[in-house]
Amino acid sequence: MKAQVLNQYDETLGADRWVTLQDVPDPRIAKSTDVIVRIGGAGVCRTDLHIIEGVWKPHMDPTGDRLLPLIMGHENAGWVEEVGKEVEGIKVGDPVIVHPKISGGTCLACRRGFDMHGPGTFPGLDSNGGYSQYLCTSERNIVALPRTLAPKDVAPYSDAGLTAYRAVKKATRHLLPGERCVVIGAGGLGHIGIQCLKAMCAADIIVVDKSDASLALAGKVGADELVKADGNEVEAVLALTDGQGAEAVIDFVGEKGTTAKGLAMTRAMGSYYVVGYGEDIRVPTVDMVITEKNIIGNLVGTWAELVELMALADRGLVNLATVEYSLADANKALQDLNAGKIHGRAVLIP
Amino acid sequence: MKAQVLNQYDETLGADRWVTLQDVPDPRIAKSTDVIVRIGGAGVCRTDLHIIEGVWKPHMDPTGDRLLPLIMGHENAGWVEEVGKEVEGIKVGDPVIVHPKISGGTCLACRRGFDMHGPGTFPGLDSNGGYSQYLCTSERNIVALPRTLAPKDVAPYSDAGLTAYRAVKKATRHLLPGERCVVIGAGGLGHIGIQCLKAMCAADIIVVDKSDASLALAGKVGADELVKADGNEVEAVLALTDGQGAEAVIDFVGEKGTTAKGLAMTRAMGSYYVVGYGEDIRVPTVDMVITEKNIIGNLVGTWAELVELMALADRGLVNLATVEYSLADANKALQDLNAGKIHGRAVLIP
Amino acid sequence: MKAQVLNQYDETLGADRWVTLQDVPDPRIAKSTDVIVRIGGAGVCRTDLHIIEGVWKPHMDPTGDRLLPLIMGHENAGWVEEVGKEVEGIKVGDPVIVHPKISGGTCLACRRGFDMHGPGTFPGLDSNGGYSQYLCTSERNIVALPRTLAPKDVAPYSDAGLTAYRAVKKATRHLLPGERCVVIGAGGLGHIGIQCLKAMCAADIIVVDKSDASLALAGKVGADELVKADGNEVEAVLALTDGQGAEAVIDFVGEKGTTAKGLAMTRAMGSYYVVGYGEDIRVPTVDMVITEKNIIGNLVGTWAELVELMALADRGLVNLATVEYSLADANKALQDLNAGKIHGRAVLIP
Amino acid sequence: MKAQVLNQYDETLGADRWVTLQDVPDPRIAKSTDVIVRIGGAGVCRTDLHIIEGVWKPHMDPTGDRLLPLIMGHENAGWVEEVGKEVEGIKVGDPVIVHPKISGGTCLACRRGFDMHGPGTFPGLDSNGGYSQYLCTSERNIVALPRTLAPKDVAPYSDAGLTAYRAVKKATRHLLPGERCVVIGAGGLGHIGIQCLKAMCAADIIVVDKSDASLALAGKVGADELVKADGNEVEAVLALTDGQGAEAVIDFVGEKGTTAKGLAMTRAMGSYYVVGYGEDIRVPTVDMVITEKNIIGNLVGTWAELVELMALADRGLVNLATVEYSLADANKALQDLNAGKIHGRAVLIP
Repeated sequence: MKAQVLNQYDETLGADRWVTLQDVPDPRIAKSTDVIVRIGGAGVCRTDLHIIEGVWKPHMDPTGDRLLPLIMGHENAGWVEEVGKEVEGIKVGDPVIVHPKISGGTCLACRRGFDMHGPGTFPGLDSNGGYSQYLCTSERNIVALPRTLAPKDVAPYSDAGLTAYRAVKKATRHLLPGERCVVIGAGGLGHIGIQCLKAMCAADIIVVDKSDASLALAGKVGADELVKADGNEVEAVLALTDGQGAEAVIDFVGEKGTTAKGLAMTRAMGSYYVVGYGEDIRVPTVDMVITEKNIIGNLVGTWAELVELMALADRGLVNLATVEYSLADANKALQDLNAGKIHGRAVLIP
Repeated sequence: MKAQVLNQYDETLGADRWVTLQDVPDPRIAKSTDVIVRIGGAGVCRTDLHIIEGVWKPHMDPTGDRLLPLIMGHENAGWVEEVGKEVEGIKVGDPVIVHPKISGGTCLACRRGFDMHGPGTFPGLDSNGGYSQYLCTSERNIVALPRTLAPKDVAPYSDAGLTAYRAVKKATRHLLPGERCVVIGAGGLGHIGIQCLKAMCAADIIVVDKSDASLALAGKVGADELVKADGNEVEAVLALTDGQGAEAVIDFVGEKGTTAKGLAMTRAMGSYYVVGYGEDIRVPTVDMVITEKNIIGNLVGTWAELVELMALADRGLVNLATVEYSLADANKALQDLNAGKIHGRAVLIP
Repeated sequence: MKAQVLNQYDETLGADRWVTLQDVPDPRIAKSTDVIVRIGGAGVCRTDLHIIEGVWKPHMDPTGDRLLPLIMGHENAGWVEEVGKEVEGIKVGDPVIVHPKISGGTCLACRRGFDMHGPGTFPGLDSNGGYSQYLCTSERNIVALPRTLAPKDVAPYSDAGLTAYRAVKKATRHLLPGERCVVIGAGGLGHIGIQCLKAMCAADIIVVDKSDASLALAGKVGADELVKADGNEVEAVLALTDGQGAEAVIDFVGEKGTTAKGLAMTRAMGSYYVVGYGEDIRVPTVDMVITEKNIIGNLVGTWAELVELMALADRGLVNLATVEYSLADANKALQDLNAGKIHGRAVLIP
Repeated sequence: MKAQVLNQYDETLGADRWVTLQDVPDPRIAKSTDVIVRIGGAGVCRTDLHIIEGVWKPHMDPTGDRLLPLIMGHENAGWVEEVGKEVEGIKVGDPVIVHPKISGGTCLACRRGFDMHGPGTFPGLDSNGGYSQYLCTSERNIVALPRTLAPKDVAPYSDAGLTAYRAVKKATRHLLPGERCVVIGAGGLGHIGIQCLKAMCAADIIVVDKSDASLALAGKVGADELVKADGNEVEAVLALTDGQGAEAVIDFVGEKGTTAKGLAMTRAMGSYYVVGYGEDIRVPTVDMVITEKNIIGNLVGTWAELVELMALADRGLVNLATVEYSLADANKALQDLNAGKIHGRAVLIP
């Protein structure tokens, strides 16, 4: 099959071309519960740029000879092409979205439903992913798509969308009418998160971003209040929340000072959700005690949560702006992403 | 002051006039935390008809000489007229809605926030209520109204609305996207409940009612599916829910067979919420075990929940259809209610 | 292998011998994730008597020719004898206990951890069970035993124990110090439930039973108060609970009037847990509303909950009284159970 | 009355005497719900040393002339001496313990049961406390003592005990059998916390402390594993927890590096509870994301939680080691505390 292959790192992201379109062997069914998916769309994610830069190299590929060549692509959707001999309930031709983590299903974390906390692989990061025509995954990773949804339109939900959904879902379990939720960052994840919030709770949604375009988008998809991140965003949020902050703050940025600001926007007894990452959180213990705040980590989502997110998409409660590129144009998509030229999510179509 | 007084029961509801407009002494501040409210509107509730019939007599007035004469009216809103000397944070003239239960605030139930489960009185049922110009209540019962809301427009939220809100709130704590909530009865409470559901979760809302007019209203305020209660409503709901029923069923009727039907519409592991009452629930223990269903009782709501409901109303997420009558026309309002002529809630204006 | 086979029903339980020791083919690995367990012990349960009586016939075997011959036995533990070719993490010779429900693992209920609510089979009830030398199950049903626990000593935990544990666990999620939990029935399940309660919360434990021997046992394993079910048990429980009842009531009987009594022992806002079954629950809706009680169904438990229960057993926090019979004496064990001669749980040893 | 008065700060804690025994006016009932308590015992807390040092001066007394002279003492118990004219349910002579925060009871936080998050005063810190014969408080702060408990024996529960209880209670809401809870610091709070854990859940309790005496005490009151904080405590805890850490870590120290170590001892999806304070928490956002950990702040406890803790004490499930000093010897008690000579909690007896 055709695949875009990463053959070497580029720490400065200075090259013209990072991945190479090659003929590689088709993936084959190895286990009786394997499923081969014909890719309909593969989302292009900032994490892919980090892989190219070698950010993951120290952890996953310390000697530089274990991971590459790698087919990237961890946000995949398509159609079932072939199934292992013990796969049930999935038919060849079914449109599907692929949960990003292949876990075993037998450990305690998996058995309690926390798929992303069991041991397993993450295709596109530590094994071959979906920048290609076909992908081998497990029946455990397959979520059937409702007829309303085409694979190429939903592929980015499998990771970016799922991550936003899980953090929002946690917040909506405690948010009540009259309470407030601050969303820091109205980009790819944030803009899905705002829509999930609007659908799942009645809290007021305050969106903080430094980009006017992002704020405008936030307003269109459900934000109640828009706050420009101009250096006075903490004061602006406090002014909107009786001077006390919001019951929930979801930080889709996690760098350049948003963690301290996000915590300062969080009300006593409120929760600050860490989704974006980059910098360190630094907070005095005495502040945590006096205010009784919570800091909540968030990691992708469960298989069941991907089903829930597809239900939102199916009902039109969440919409995703995508920009299509052919698989052959993968380098262009990555370059455009790196140049900040993509609004919404880029998707590669084989 | 002027008040409409119930001086005798009418078990058949056959009389022309049930309450009498009389001059009665103004209520007076007795405790340092008392508050006198000038009534802006008093909701007229089916419970008032039950009081007239003497339904509550065996429990609250067995000898027939203890409760009457009674000023009914347990859904009250207005303006603060006078405050006890230790009342803080409430000013004369403030527009307010009155939580229906006057509880002490010191018992364990109150201290955990469950105001309606402590000992106390329920003005309009066991002491004088709001079919009058003034009402004496406690600072603990006062919820300040946002400027967007006029007392006469919101009075029925204090009991009918609050009851619907609390049951819905419990359901929304577990309802997830792709799940379903059945609402049985789209009348006064049900029609508020549907709006609360729509605002607070993303579940599909299936409304069951025997009245076409009520179903039409349900559709306007947010129902996703309408089911006519024509004898085949269980089958109809199962057909909409993979044959397995809904994760939550909220029964605002509770009589004429809705309890058995409501339980039959409830999915395994789902919850059936009892709000309306009348008949007995009867269910085999083996069915409760095999399906692991829950049956959840619901009683009015807490003071904090009335604050939450006012936040929904303030944002326009819940709207209430009211029909105004002057206090002098109380009998007409009650007769119209009894004759089924009122759509929405009747409110008496002094 | 040798197995005790049920070849015909006996509606009156009047026969001398119900099961027949026969040579039957050994079970064989069919799926790549199958596991064959050499039985170390198989619990004998009242449900087995019900199967013999034909109680399950109308549901599972209406024509009488589909289920029999059946090898009963749904409470199994032993050692791994053979594993399918894709089984990981389980080695031949490992001591294990077997979760009673073989579910697929791919449906939404399974993926959220609720194994018992997915489609599947229940060996010993609808397919061959553990009254035999070997049992074929799935890797999904295998829980490794800590070294402290021998298969024959723990087999009954897999169903009876797990059912008691799950109901108790739900109650302990809300029970607080100073609150009370009533346990109705201190027999096989109840006596495990009391120990779980003692280990998992600080609520006062009030045990109600009609048998002095059971009450004595309850006292030994952790009950704080013992109440003889002599007709005045409701009054006795109310006297121990400020006249208001207990925050949780767990009913391991579910017949002969315990449901009405159990609900009467339940405090406002409290929960009544249905575990034992037999009669209908009948409760006025108005009572459910005024008291805001909850009625909670309970069904076996999840795989993860069996792991949790084994942790309690491993630490000596729960102990089980067993009476051993050889597999050849299965009829004697069943007859003794039917005659009320077994204290604790009978276990068949092949 | 007699009272020990703090008239000036001592930043170095170098003085011989910090408080002065003086005759001061008796407190008097001001509000109709006030209660005067005759002190039976007043706990001596490390916070009192911090007040003397002036640690609280910048926040509460920036000009140095507003707070002093101050009667310290925020852990009080005794007998009701006099009640305001609208106090109900409390009689002169009743033995009571006093919740440390006097809040209004009307704000949303109070109405939801979170007394410590409403506006209010904290006697002994920002107004006169219990190093005296009498204390004026509110009926809202009074918890009746069971007959088994004498005021002087329980006074320290009102703050130190309550703080430990609340953090432990949160952890026990999610801790399951087979899971582990690490307690960092087995001093005054930690040693109460261990007992609460033992009573309220079945998790394994691992106690980390640098003092052999504290570890020995921890073992006596319920710890399952003892880990010396000798620099390798993280490795030791990981060795006890499959290399993955504990589901809950409760840090009663919060300084000298325990926060980084505590987080390192916390398992993926686990929670790290901040109780002790001193240093900053510093954690990379990427670690919070990958592990999905939670950091949970904790502040004293609610009135209802003090009731719950008294229920534990009443049943002998929690015991407190106290050392008695006469009120006249307050300086000696404070000096002994500062010198590390007190094991358990010092209590002043008027």
